[in-house]
Amino acid sequence: MNKTVLIKNAHIVTVNRQMEVFKGDILVSGKHISAVSRQIDWQADEVFDAEGYIITPGFVQTHIHLCQVLFRNLADDLSLLEWLKEKIWPFEAAHTEQSIRVSARLGIAELFLSGTTTIMDMGTVRHQEAVFQELAEAGMRAVAGKTMMDFGEYPPGLQETTAASIDTSLRLLEKWHGFDEDRLQYAFAPRFALSCSEDLMRQTAKLAREHNVLFHTHASENKDEAELIRQRFGVSNIRLFETIGAANENLCLAHCVWSDENDRQLLKETDIKVLHCPSANLKLGSGIAPIPDYLKREITVSLGADGAPCNNNLNIFQEMRLAALIQKPLAGARTMPAEQVFRMGTINGARTLGMEDKIGSIEPDKRADLTFIKINQVHAIPFDNIYSKLVYSTQAADVQHVMIDGKWVVRDRILQTINETGLPDAVQKQIQMLNI
Amino acid sequence: MNKTVLIKNAHIVTVNRQMEVFKGDILVSGKHISAVSRQIDWQADEVFDAEGYIITPGFVQTHIHLCQVLFRNLADDLSLLEWLKEKIWPFEAAHTEQSIRVSARLGIAELFLSGTTTIMDMGTVRHQEAVFQELAEAGMRAVAGKTMMDFGEYPPGLQETTAASIDTSLRLLEKWHGFDEDRLQYAFAPRFALSCSEDLMRQTAKLAREHNVLFHTHASENKDEAELIRQRFGVSNIRLFETIGAANENLCLAHCVWSDENDRQLLKETDIKVLHCPSANLKLGSGIAPIPDYLKREITVSLGADGAPCNNNLNIFQEMRLAALIQKPLAGARTMPAEQVFRMGTINGARTLGMEDKIGSIEPDKRADLTFIKINQVHAIPFDNIYSKLVYSTQAADVQHVMIDGKWVVRDRILQTINETGLPDAVQKQIQMLNI
Repeated sequence: MNKTVLIKNAHIVTVNRQMEVFKGDILVSGKHISAVSRQIDWQADEVFDAEGYIITPGFVQTHIHLCQVLFRNLADDLSLLEWLKEKIWPFEAAHTEQSIRVSARLGIAELFLSGTTTIMDMGTVRHQEAVFQELAEAGMRAVAGKTMMDFGEYPPGLQETTAASIDTSLRLLEKWHGFDEDRLQYAFAPRFALSCSEDLMRQTAKLAREHNVLFHTHASENKDEAELIRQRFGVSNIRLFETIGAANENLCLAHCVWSDENDRQLLKETDIKVLHCPSANLKLGSGIAPIPDYLKREITVSLGADGAPCNNNLNIFQEMRLAALIQKPLAGARTMPAEQVFRMGTINGARTLGMEDKIGSIEPDKRADLTFIKINQVHAIPFDNIYSKLVYSTQAADVQHVMIDGKWVVRDRILQTINETGLPDAVQKQIQMLNI
Repeated sequence: MNKTVLIKNAHIVTVNRQMEVFKGDILVSGKHISAVSRQIDWQADEVFDAEGYIITPGFVQTHIHLCQVLFRNLADDLSLLEWLKEKIWPFEAAHTEQSIRVSARLGIAELFLSGTTTIMDMGTVRHQEAVFQELAEAGMRAVAGKTMMDFGEYPPGLQETTAASIDTSLRLLEKWHGFDEDRLQYAFAPRFALSCSEDLMRQTAKLAREHNVLFHTHASENKDEAELIRQRFGVSNIRLFETIGAANENLCLAHCVWSDENDRQLLKETDIKVLHCPSANLKLGSGIAPIPDYLKREITVSLGADGAPCNNNLNIFQEMRLAALIQKPLAGARTMPAEQVFRMGTINGARTLGMEDKIGSIEPDKRADLTFIKINQVHAIPFDNIYSKLVYSTQAADVQHVMIDGKWVVRDRILQTINETGLPDAVQKQIQMLNI
């Protein structure tokens, strides 16, 4: 029989169709939410008093690089292509299985402690198995896939053939897609058009369709990159996905900073998902993505912190706040109001990952992925509109407890599935061993 | 005899002329730092082991509205002039002495818990005495002055005559300037040109010169505001201060988002200080201030969170991070590197307030204003360049202890001079009484 947890007296931000917010109770049964209402009386196995907490759906970040977390604060104040060539590719090439493991664990620790319960991860060329193992053990919900890059000049550790890239991807898909009642899913992850042969992208698009999994990649992040892609393929970076047969609802494009009318029509018509990473777009000098226009067209836009070395956190509160703030000088202060941005960090993320029926809101029959936020922090009181409070004034450290699939992964800011105490030394040791 | 505190084993970010960073000790004697070096042996009254902490100079924010903290999360997604007219002025007009007191206390609590030890505050039209009392009791270092506004149409509580505005200012200056060995200082604070008569501004400029105190105001924040000022006075908002005799090193102008070559020359030639508020400039849709150009001209630029309702925090880490990030899409990713931004939050703030010999760096004979930051937080490791860590990845909640004038104001994240437990209820009660 399923264990039941009755959560009482919380300020519940449901993100349901009516965007209801009320003080009430949540009944969790096994991995699922079985009831949400103003008052629930039930003989549960555990009763949890959530007086003084806001409960939101666990946050969803759709574009993360767990393998880069180890390189946080080591590659700053550089633009995208120099950042990749001078720092990130050599660093990733130096990675060992163990260093990737520590990198992923550090990232998951930060994500949990800031209330994110689901991610889509861009993976790593080698040792992707270690990333899946860390996600599995920590209890995170994730869509992930090995990074594919078979075109161009890279340090030896990142070189791979088209066939090997696809074979490894398929083996990982076979092993991990659907793990733990669908908690982990596979996505094909060609890095970006400049690092992939057209053959690889075409084959991957076909495989993603056949297996009905996501195709996760970067597009139109940086002006120079977009120009190089146009020179090589003769079309825009976004239209390229139509050419290779990938333009459909399973295509997830990180960034889309530089797009024209024609690109935007394709995004809308084919239900391509835009993964918006505001901190990374600013820090790498890429630009400000035309998100208000995408939203007006009803394109699905979700949020991600991208890599720690271009952010330098993995903090959904920072991304929500920034997503709202950066548009206002361009489009007016009423643009991107808090409630809309809050949806980007929750239900839009769920929709992006094809999990709208499973996560992204607090409703019966959805999975019990819940984030508990202290309501009375001095930096976030008073409040009237709860979305203003959550988007503009709440800090990552206000997250006190986190539950995924009905299991506590954070309780009183203590990680339940990761040994936080050992992490700083483990991180230091891996950095030294990589000698970067 | 002065009490001595010997702080051992800290990672000290000195911000001295050589920008030295080293592991070592700090000896505090009374209100002052008496020694800083790799090893100090001394029979101190208190020995404090700072292993595992970075110690930075207490942060300085040069543009804050303590009286607005009570209105946090109550005035969002509006542009400057509508935000003022629809929300902030009616709210400020409704303030009572007691509600201002609670507002100031809430702001100081947040500032302390995020490591800010010195502010310049824009004040309030009425009950400025209460703000000074709260600053005095809490132990904050501050420059403050009553808000002056004698021109235009405002709700009754904000209307004042030129003579009354000046008289009240002078009485407050007399009483508070120099309080507690200069911990509190007075600044004249005409709100902005649109709310002041030319007579008030001229008289205030003269009085600021005579008393050698700062002249603190807003300028060129918003395009519409700047245009209205040009229509009324026939000169740009920044050149207006030359006209009224205020253009000198004691003039502190918040924002300066909209400036032309002529304005910028004046800023440089007369050593006017620019108070940069990146969050507020974005949130009110005002624009992105040309800070890299100001810095290139060697204009002194410091940072401020501005008012809680246009931010919605008073968090120096957010302001530093954003100050760096927002310039990069415009001027390239190498613009505004972390070290430069860190100086804006420390020594540039000190210079702005005429306190360069007293605060802003950790050096012998300066005041002991120190911020202790946990070094091993999962969201901020690893690190190589310590300024990258502090500017891009450190969070407000990483601040563990804070000292001002050699006295602890925060210890283990517990406020030492403010009753934090009672604050949420006090805030709620005041909001209800104001009925806003």
